[in-house]
Order: sequence, then C-alpha cells, then structure tokens
Amino acid sequence: MITINKNEAIPLSKQIYMSFVDKIRSGLLMDGTKLPTVRQLSKDLEVSLVTVMKAYKQLEEDGFLELSKGKGTYVKTQQQPESVHTASDLDWQLSIPDYLHRSQYARFQDSDANYHFSSSMIDPALFPNQYMDQLIAQVFMQNPRILSQYGGIQGDLALREKMAQNLQKSKITTSPENLLITSGSQQGIDLVARTFVGPGDVVIMEAPTYPGAIDVFRSRGATILTVPVDQDGMRVDMLHSLCEKHNPKLIYTTPTFHNPTGTIMPLRRRKILLDIAESHHCLIMEDDPFSDIYFDRKPPLPIKSMDKAGHVIYLKGLSKTIAPGCRIGLIAASGSIFKRLYAAKANMDLGSPLLPQKVILPLVDSTKMEQHTKRLRAALKSRRDSVLKVLAEQAPAGVTWLNPKGGLNIWIQLPAWLDSNDLLTEANKRHVSFLTGSACFAIENEHSTFRLSYSYANEKLLEEGVQILCDIMQALKPSSSSSPTF
Amino acid sequence: MITINKNEAIPLSKQIYMSFVDKIRSGLLMDGTKLPTVRQLSKDLEVSLVTVMKAYKQLEEDGFLELSKGKGTYVKTQQQPESVHTASDLDWQLSIPDYLHRSQYARFQDSDANYHFSSSMIDPALFPNQYMDQLIAQVFMQNPRILSQYGGIQGDLALREKMAQNLQKSKITTSPENLLITSGSQQGIDLVARTFVGPGDVVIMEAPTYPGAIDVFRSRGATILTVPVDQDGMRVDMLHSLCEKHNPKLIYTTPTFHNPTGTIMPLRRRKILLDIAESHHCLIMEDDPFSDIYFDRKPPLPIKSMDKAGHVIYLKGLSKTIAPGCRIGLIAASGSIFKRLYAAKANMDLGSPLLPQKVILPLVDSTKMEQHTKRLRAALKSRRDSVLKVLAEQAPAGVTWLNPKGGLNIWIQLPAWLDSNDLLTEANKRHVSFLTGSACFAIENEHSTFRLSYSYANEKLLEEGVQILCDIMQALKPSSSSSPTF
Repeated sequence: MITINKNEAIPLSKQIYMSFVDKIRSGLLMDGTKLPTVRQLSKDLEVSLVTVMKAYKQLEEDGFLELSKGKGTYVKTQQQPESVHTASDLDWQLSIPDYLHRSQYARFQDSDANYHFSSSMIDPALFPNQYMDQLIAQVFMQNPRILSQYGGIQGDLALREKMAQNLQKSKITTSPENLLITSGSQQGIDLVARTFVGPGDVVIMEAPTYPGAIDVFRSRGATILTVPVDQDGMRVDMLHSLCEKHNPKLIYTTPTFHNPTGTIMPLRRRKILLDIAESHHCLIMEDDPFSDIYFDRKPPLPIKSMDKAGHVIYLKGLSKTIAPGCRIGLIAASGSIFKRLYAAKANMDLGSPLLPQKVILPLVDSTKMEQHTKRLRAALKSRRDSVLKVLAEQAPAGVTWLNPKGGLNIWIQLPAWLDSNDLLTEANKRHVSFLTGSACFAIENEHSTFRLSYSYANEKLLEEGVQILCDIMQALKPSSSSSPTF
Repeated sequence: MITINKNEAIPLSKQIYMSFVDKIRSGLLMDGTKLPTVRQLSKDLEVSLVTVMKAYKQLEEDGFLELSKGKGTYVKTQQQPESVHTASDLDWQLSIPDYLHRSQYARFQDSDANYHFSSSMIDPALFPNQYMDQLIAQVFMQNPRILSQYGGIQGDLALREKMAQNLQKSKITTSPENLLITSGSQQGIDLVARTFVGPGDVVIMEAPTYPGAIDVFRSRGATILTVPVDQDGMRVDMLHSLCEKHNPKLIYTTPTFHNPTGTIMPLRRRKILLDIAESHHCLIMEDDPFSDIYFDRKPPLPIKSMDKAGHVIYLKGLSKTIAPGCRIGLIAASGSIFKRLYAAKANMDLGSPLLPQKVILPLVDSTKMEQHTKRLRAALKSRRDSVLKVLAEQAPAGVTWLNPKGGLNIWIQLPAWLDSNDLLTEANKRHVSFLTGSACFAIENEHSTFRLSYSYANEKLLEEGVQILCDIMQALKPSSSSSPTF
C-alpha cells in the first residue's frame, strides 16, 4: 500500500504518515478503505510496531483515520464519498499495487467552480483569438503537409532555432541542438525526474512549492527535503548545510515569480544557489513559467544565464501566455545531461506532436503577439489589484498576503484559528475554488495558507469570489471565548 | 552504472550482460568508455567475482568490450565514434547516475537514409493533404478560441465521445469516462508502465516485440520474461506455466499485425490469453496500432472486446493513419485501473494538448477519411508486394520472411552466416536503413532477423533499396569453404 526508504533523512514514522496523507489527499485512498493492522504494516515494511503506531496516532489526530474498536482502522476524508462501488467484477483490480504515490495537483485542475481560482490558467478572453486564427490559416497555407508529418524526438528544428535566439535575450547562450521540446513544463519536470531521480535520491525543494512537481518527485520515490521561502524566495543560506549533510542530486526552484508565493529571488541569491550546486556536484532544475508576466520591472536574469558547467536544467513554458491549446514547453541543458534527457524523451513519447509546434512558431516572435503580452501584463496586474483591494477592505484581521510583482498567483496566510482545508470546504459550497497550501508543501504539515490564482476569472468574478471568501472567513471567526465549531 | 534485481527469474550474469548490451546499443555507453573492474563491479552489485567475470567474458566474445591487458576493459561499439569530447567543464556530469536503462528504438527513428525502412511512419504523400487543410480551416472557424483553451487531463470530451462510438464497431463497450487521450501510443505504454510496473515486477512480452515497449519496461526496472511468436502470434500455450512460476503483473501484446512480425493472433488464442490473465489476476496491455491497415480481410476482434472484469488496458493509436502530425493515442480501461492511469497522466503532463485533439475530431469519422483509409490499405498492400517481389527474386537462398496480411512491416529471417547488425552496417553505407532484430528482443541475444517497414518509402525506393539489401547479402555470402570475413 505504501513504500518507505530505510536510509532516509526523514524519520520512518513521518514517512509512513506522509505516504498515507499523500495518497488520501490525492484521492488514491478512498473514504472507508480499511488500512492494514499495525502488526501487519510493521511486518510488511520491516519497521517496529512503535513506528507504525506513532504514524497511525498522528493520522488519527489529524483526522485522516478513524479507529473503530475491534473492527480496524479506516480512511476518513473530508471529501465527498465516491459513488457507491457496485462493480464487484472489478474488485480484483485493487490487488494490483501501483507506483503512484501522490497526485494532488490534478484535483485542483478540473474544477467547475464559478469562481475558479484554483489553477493558474489564463482566461481565454485575454488572447487575441481572431488574430491567432488568421495566422494559423497562413500556417496551413505555407505548410501543406503539416498534418502528415512527425516532429522528431527533439522537436521541430525551426522552433528550436527561434527559441535559441529568444533565450539569448535572457542571456542564456544555447543552441538548437541543446533544446528539447516538451508537451508543457509539467512534462519537462517529469522528464528530468524520471531520468535522474529514483528511490532514495535526495531532492531539495522550496517550502512551499509547485504541487505538480512534488507529485512527480514523490512518485519517483525521492526523498524530498525542503528549504523555506521568504520574501526573497528560497532561503539559500540554509542550503549549504543541507547539501553538506544530505548530498542532494537535484534542487528544484522557481526563482522568478515563485509558485505559489509570487516572490522573486534576487540575483545574489541566484549566484549563491549556483555556487552551491557547483561545489556539491548537483543539478538545478530552474522552472521558469512566468518570467514574461512582470508588472513593474523585468525580473533578474535566469540562473541558467550564469551556468558555465551544465548544472542547470532550464524549463520554460512556451504556450501558457501565447496559446495554451498548444501546450509546449522547452528544456535547455547541455552535455551528457542533455543527451540522456533526449533518450528519455524518446522512451516517453517519441517526441511531442508537430502540429502545435508549427502553429506556435509564427506566434512566438510576431509584433502583434508582443503587444498581446504587454496587454496581458496590464490585464493581469489589474486583476491582481482587484483581489488585493477586496482583501485589504474585507479580510478579517490576521489574514495576510504577499503582493506579487508578477505571475498569476497570490499567496494568502490565514490566522491560527482558520484551517485552509476548512475554508475550502465552505468555499466549494459557494462555488469558489482555490489551491490549499497543504498541497504546496512536500513534507510540512501546513494548514494555514492558500494560493489564489487571478489569471482565469475576470475582475467582476474575482471581486465577487474574494468577497465570498472574506465573508466565509468572517463567519468562521471564533467568538472571543469559544473555539471554532469544526 | 547498471542495476540488477537479486530475486529475479533471470541469472545474475545474464542480467549484467543484458544491462551493458542495452546501454551500449542505446548509445548510453559510448565507444571507449572504461568499465569498472571485475572486482569493483562485484563489490558494487554485491555479486560474486565469477558472476561478473562470466558476464564480461560473454560481452567480450560478442564484441561489446575490449580487454586491454593491464589497462582495463573498454566499451567497443560498431557505431561511429562520437565527436571528440572537448567540453571538459561538463565532465562532472558523468558522475550523475541515471535511470535510463535502454533507449534503442530512438536510434532507428530519426534516420536520414535515402531508403528509410527503419521506422513505421507513413509516407506523407499518402495523405489527402489538401482536403485535410480545408477541413482544418473549418475547425478554426467553428472553434474561435481553440488556441486559448486547455484540453483537461483526460482529453477532449467530444473526441472521447466519438471514440467510444467508434470502439463499439470493434465490439468494445466503453464510455467517454473510461477513455484517456495520450500523445501517441508510446506515451500510453509509458503511462501504464510508470503506473503499474516497478523494479522486479515481472512483465511478459512477445519475442520479438516492439522495441519502444522494451525500452519503457526496462527503464522501469521490470523483469522481462518472453514468450516466442509463431505464425499465429504469441505462443499462448507456453504462457500458463510461465504465469504459474513467475506471477507476472502485466502481459504486453500486439495481437493484430504484430510488431515486428506482422502475424495475427487468432480469436481462440486471444480467448486463452484473457483466460490466463483472469486466472492469474494480471493485466494485459493490448497495443493495437495497425488494425485498420488490413489487406485482405478484417482481423479478429480485439481482446478488449471480450474483457468483462477489467483486465485489459487497450491502446489505440489514433493519428498514425489519419494525421501523424497530431500524435494522438487512446487508452480504454476500467475501474480503479483507469482511475490510477488518469492520476498518473496528470503527473505526467496535465493532459495532452487540445489543438491536435480538436483538429483530428472531424477527420476521425468523415466519409472522405474512410475513403482515405481504404486507399491507404491499397497503397500499402502494393508497397508490401513490391518488397516481396524483389525479395522473392533476389534474396539469397536461406533468407526467409513472413507475408504480412496487414500493418506496415515485413519481418525477415537471415541464414546462419549473416548477422543483421553486419548487414545494417553495410546497408547504412549505401543509405539504406532498417530495424535490426536485436532491438526487438528483450532478453534473447538474436542476430539473424530484421524488420523492414514499407510504409514510408514509395515503390521505386522500396524496389531499389531492397535490391541493394539483396546485393549486400549476396556479397556477404561466404564462399563454400571459408567463413565470413567479419
């Protein structure tokens, strides 16, 4: 049911706890599932009874399990129970174990909330749709066999050539031979993880960080250690001793408009981070989805721009702000690191589809699309301001937030009396969705934060939705003497 | 450098041998790489000196290693040496181990041979390109925001609805909720493997089989066991005892126009295969890329059509014969097997790009495209015939082949005096490419077969290219008394 690593930096009881929490929050262990007995699990995992008991106790305390005396231990979730399971023919399938340890981010993606603040997609109305259609018509005119051709494993050469030029603007010197096209950044993260990260390998992540990346590393069986984020991004001062002690293989970071906090890592910290990676012979995965979405001034140069010895694997989302329907990402890496990523990409899907690559090519550098990006920045800034305004006026005392200077998200901190999962339950009832902070922490058990994406809903919806959230918070506020009722 | 599984069904020395062969043939260990000493490797892998010595001896005998007295053991490849490695800044990268055990298929994909017979792509000239362009123009007219939208994790609902209907024609009863869109079948294979197959899990494959699937299962650390293929596909009579003994988790099969042999598994064998999976509680991955490309009569119904209890994960390539630039595949599965694949797909890439899905939708069921498929069958049959004609007239005695009744490939067996890797070396010099049989065997050390794809080159190129191959074979034929010179 779960796996642990014996030689890990994290205590075994905590590993057991985390594994169950991850599976429950991912919907992979459903409400009412019977857990193995303490004795059985201690035997299966070859750990002491005390270790398992400690983990179960904590799970029960945190409301993930229910002990039914004499009957056993059952999973308890706050989520709606699954529809009654009648297809008994399929019951044997549950005997097939899997290697899927966590898949939390997915649960916040396909939301049908009216006030959809849970995923950082961009409102389709913000794209120059008519112009794009005209351009696409030209693409088909110019490439009569576009649908009949494969793109090759590495991706379309013309697109890679264009992107090598574009990266030069961020002082990243590379060549089309060192670029790999992926189906979005998520696939890029997954590609790097499957190639270089395996059971027990140490990966350092920011706390909080992008949940989709946690899902990937956890499912590779990595030991994730974390470094906190302050208003200047990752606390690199804490990195050195962590590296000394645990010899990480890879450091995952989103230095620019950090996901979910929106913070910007200053150049000085970027240099320190690179220095540490160099001296410890480890890889940096620099995930850079939002750097074009700045509100005031351009962010610092990417870490990759300073990378001389091939430590940085740079991931750039290409389609999110231009043409989301294309889902294209880019990886820049060098040497044998690149070659191995290329080989893994072949195993993964033999190369991304050609059509979206051919379609995005004329968009990438057109003047019209540059204007679009400029307008997009202004539109998103205005949406951010709408959220900040309602929060400033309506949020109860004790609720705080960071003012993002770019990107698509606001990170909100709740006071001690308010659990973000409780807030979400109430919010969902009123058709508001957001990403709970608990999904953004790989190992910390965190309940008092959430991420609000202001990129999908328009100002009106944002104002209404944030107002609803503030109303719920007010309603959940304990009276001065009593504790909250749930 | 390599990993082995201690409790495997395959002897340890053979595992070590295979691991090195896989890495060398995949280009992941380059010519001149120094291997660890026998003592070192025996220590690293915790196996006896004798075991390592046995593996090294076999590798040397088969020409993969070179022992230089007093200097050590070096990788020897028949391939062109890589360009001289000058970037010494990047040397540290070699200290980063990876989880990429095999990636052979990729090496046959991006061939620039004039006579490109190595990958089963379809000649772009065989598609109704102009018609497709017109249709696409309509797609953009009807979906003005097509580029601005995400497709969701599971894939476009309209496409899944259409495909659920289409599968009914093959007597597969499913619903849009049980279908998942992937970026081609390769991604489908990878998705299933990453979800259900891990180190030491037993996977049964056909021998020979599709190399892209071997690459995936090997890189997951699976123990691959094989069942030979005869003129009726997998020898299911040998399957039962293998399952009894080794308790496999998954059986991978391409029952219809088997890749690479082109054989068709009769309905009776399909039923037996399903029975065995049911009684051993294991999964079947039924890969069905070619069933629309039949030359005489429709092939038997898919195994999935008989699957009552959710044992079969059915993979269907959608774009190969309609619009390769879209790279779309489909997975049909049920119950918790499906749910877990869905969650893994989210981790993998958050869903395939929407654009190709919207583009292929009107193509899937148009009358015009049905006519196209009909014409495609005729064209490919004619190309197959061209190859068979030249082979019949020009191949030396002892060369045999199977006559495929559909699909894109001919499987050719060479006489004992002719090694297919030698043939490939000579063929490449004359700009002919094919897929060596050795890539199609997961564990057998096989040198006397190759796969020739007749789908990409036209009749003229096929006739010329196969003529060249026959000429080379004749030239390599040993004179009656002496042995071959290489």
